[in-house]
Amino acid sequence: MKATIVTVGDEILIGQIVDTNSSFIAKSLDKIGIGVYEMLSITDDKQHILSTLSSLQNTVDVVIVTGGLGPTKDDITKKTFCDYFDDTLVVDEKVLAHVTQLIEGFFKRPITQINKDQALVPSRCEVLFNQVGTAPGMWMEKENTVFISLPGVPFEMKHLIENAVIPKLITKFERPYIVHKTILTYGVGESLLAERIEHWEDNLPEFIKLAYLPSPGRVRLRLSARGADENSLHEGIREQIEKLQLIISDCIVGFDDGETIEVVLGKLLSEKKMTIATAESCTGGKIASVITSVPGSSSYFKGSVVSYATEVKETVLGVPSAVIEKHSVVSAPVAEAMALQAQKIFNADYAIATTGNAGPDKGESEAEIGTVFIAVATPKGVFSEEFNFGQPREKVIDRAVIKGLEIIYKEITKNL
Amino acid sequence: MKATIVTVGDEILIGQIVDTNSSFIAKSLDKIGIGVYEMLSITDDKQHILSTLSSLQNTVDVVIVTGGLGPTKDDITKKTFCDYFDDTLVVDEKVLAHVTQLIEGFFKRPITQINKDQALVPSRCEVLFNQVGTAPGMWMEKENTVFISLPGVPFEMKHLIENAVIPKLITKFERPYIVHKTILTYGVGESLLAERIEHWEDNLPEFIKLAYLPSPGRVRLRLSARGADENSLHEGIREQIEKLQLIISDCIVGFDDGETIEVVLGKLLSEKKMTIATAESCTGGKIASVITSVPGSSSYFKGSVVSYATEVKETVLGVPSAVIEKHSVVSAPVAEAMALQAQKIFNADYAIATTGNAGPDKGESEAEIGTVFIAVATPKGVFSEEFNFGQPREKVIDRAVIKGLEIIYKEITKNL
Repeated sequence: MKATIVTVGDEILIGQIVDTNSSFIAKSLDKIGIGVYEMLSITDDKQHILSTLSSLQNTVDVVIVTGGLGPTKDDITKKTFCDYFDDTLVVDEKVLAHVTQLIEGFFKRPITQINKDQALVPSRCEVLFNQVGTAPGMWMEKENTVFISLPGVPFEMKHLIENAVIPKLITKFERPYIVHKTILTYGVGESLLAERIEHWEDNLPEFIKLAYLPSPGRVRLRLSARGADENSLHEGIREQIEKLQLIISDCIVGFDDGETIEVVLGKLLSEKKMTIATAESCTGGKIASVITSVPGSSSYFKGSVVSYATEVKETVLGVPSAVIEKHSVVSAPVAEAMALQAQKIFNADYAIATTGNAGPDKGESEAEIGTVFIAVATPKGVFSEEFNFGQPREKVIDRAVIKGLEIIYKEITKNL
Repeated sequence: MKATIVTVGDEILIGQIVDTNSSFIAKSLDKIGIGVYEMLSITDDKQHILSTLSSLQNTVDVVIVTGGLGPTKDDITKKTFCDYFDDTLVVDEKVLAHVTQLIEGFFKRPITQINKDQALVPSRCEVLFNQVGTAPGMWMEKENTVFISLPGVPFEMKHLIENAVIPKLITKFERPYIVHKTILTYGVGESLLAERIEHWEDNLPEFIKLAYLPSPGRVRLRLSARGADENSLHEGIREQIEKLQLIISDCIVGFDDGETIEVVLGKLLSEKKMTIATAESCTGGKIASVITSVPGSSSYFKGSVVSYATEVKETVLGVPSAVIEKHSVVSAPVAEAMALQAQKIFNADYAIATTGNAGPDKGESEAEIGTVFIAVATPKGVFSEEFNFGQPREKVIDRAVIKGLEIIYKEITKNL
């Protein structure tokens, strides 16, 4: 079972937008044991789309195309599909009624011809009804290949993948079992980690594959097992993870995909019925934003003071001005005072604080660009660490966010 | 001049990470007039890489491959390059010295064989020296095609593209001129916008192409002009934009790529020497985070109170408990009180406040999931608007962030 994912759109090929659809689709296919052989991004050009479709026919079982279904004139995938299947466009009454209801009922404006044209589909295609948007999906088959066309708007595409495409693929195809397990590690770089687990890796059984997925401050290890008997795949992975835990227990944060450090931290705080708050300068509220991206975070996250302007550290957060004057605003004592104040005013068990210079300019502070002090206040006291995350600005902020979450996670687990 | 970008890595094909490298590379090539014909993501499999390289030879001028150069065992691009060019791996002394310095000098740990192997390169390749990492880039040529291999770590790849690849391509190839101009609009959906500018679009000259780039709450219009005479391209685009401004002046926020609403708002506040603060509940600090993602934002952003827990709205932000009890925490009066308090305690000219229910569960509040009240405090007073951004949680938060920035931008410009 092989699939190829095709995204259509010049905006992708000139780099104006990043294609996030393909990775969502790939993940969804992977879960049901359909391997993605290639991802392609191609231009809005009709000939390019046609030649791509014919090159994929009979080489893969499934082709999923996103993009080119919007209401605007540079969208041509639907017409090209129609030509490729030597079909004609006809109005789908159910889609037309839906589009009319959306435009007139929900958006409260008169329906236009461009809106109506959304209801046109190739006469022989199976319509994948799009409840959350105006452009319908299409399912067509030619010889040994299924061709699926979906709108490029991410949440419309996601809705159709989950509610129409995956269920239909499951009923149509027999698939092998595939089991993935992801191990989230932090604090150790990719190459050092590779050194530490080299022997274990060398002795992995044939049917289990390992991949390294490094990102700033953390490395994911992904084990993939493929085979006919689902139970033995799970068993094989379980055995290998037990062995791995003996080797790198010190840097394993969690398992499975969704288990980012913020999710793991959230679980821990909920279990312990502990609360957290932040006081952020250079991270500008991003630590709070990452913590609150987790559903249910309101049960353990109290809040944050983003004290961006120096005077705000005094007026709103309550850091003594003497501390700032004595040590300068980017310093360990200020970071620690910020953490203690956040812990106090939010009445939280734990607090994270950041102060630093994210760059690109030096600004008022004398601190080197990239310097960040991260402080953590706990029921037992407060401590801080100094880092230099280099440049660019975006990297400094992101590294500081991840590191702050890692430090407090490590601190809480240490005291369990 | 055509290029194809290839990313190597199973982690992309199972959807575990999103490929952001290709879009960065595409944007860089586009700026120097090299069009990207296709982007491919392929597996870590040697045969797959080999067949891809040979299929691209003599069909495009430039092939840029990222990924497969890390220190870990599932990285094989370098070896495959070596085979494809029928070459052998040799130690590059300059790279070896650099790697040794990085590991022993910067990371303060003994160098390992895996580290040393990073210095191996095909004997006939031109090394693209990687100052910011251990894996070198490679430039090799076969018949009419240049093959370039770069590490997959984004900031290493970016460093090599900017400092090695682009300069080398500019000297090697003659290229046509290409001029892009992006118009950022907001508040009008894609299809309605298409209706309004249909006549203008129909009358665009042959050499100018229009693309719609919709994203939640905003639509980008991109004009691309291609030709031999750079001046006439600029002139042609200037004329069309003048015409466009007469049609949709009400929804044009800014021009050019970097001009997101937060950048435009930042420029406006700096010019007016005005300051801003936020009080955030359901957006959890993301408005502050977006504002502070802009370099120089410290000159106009004072700070934020993320009042996630209800009591924090009273204790830290100072919203009268009576208001919350009377109207419930997700309400217009609370949003407006939050904005006024933020304006006051941060001593800012303007303030944005959000309170809502991002879901997925209803939680304490009676408000429908997806409901968000956005309030804006100005020197003249305060007002609020109610929205329902539906689901999922992520979308509710992102829409609320964009909408909040748009409302305050519109309000400030209205009073100029």
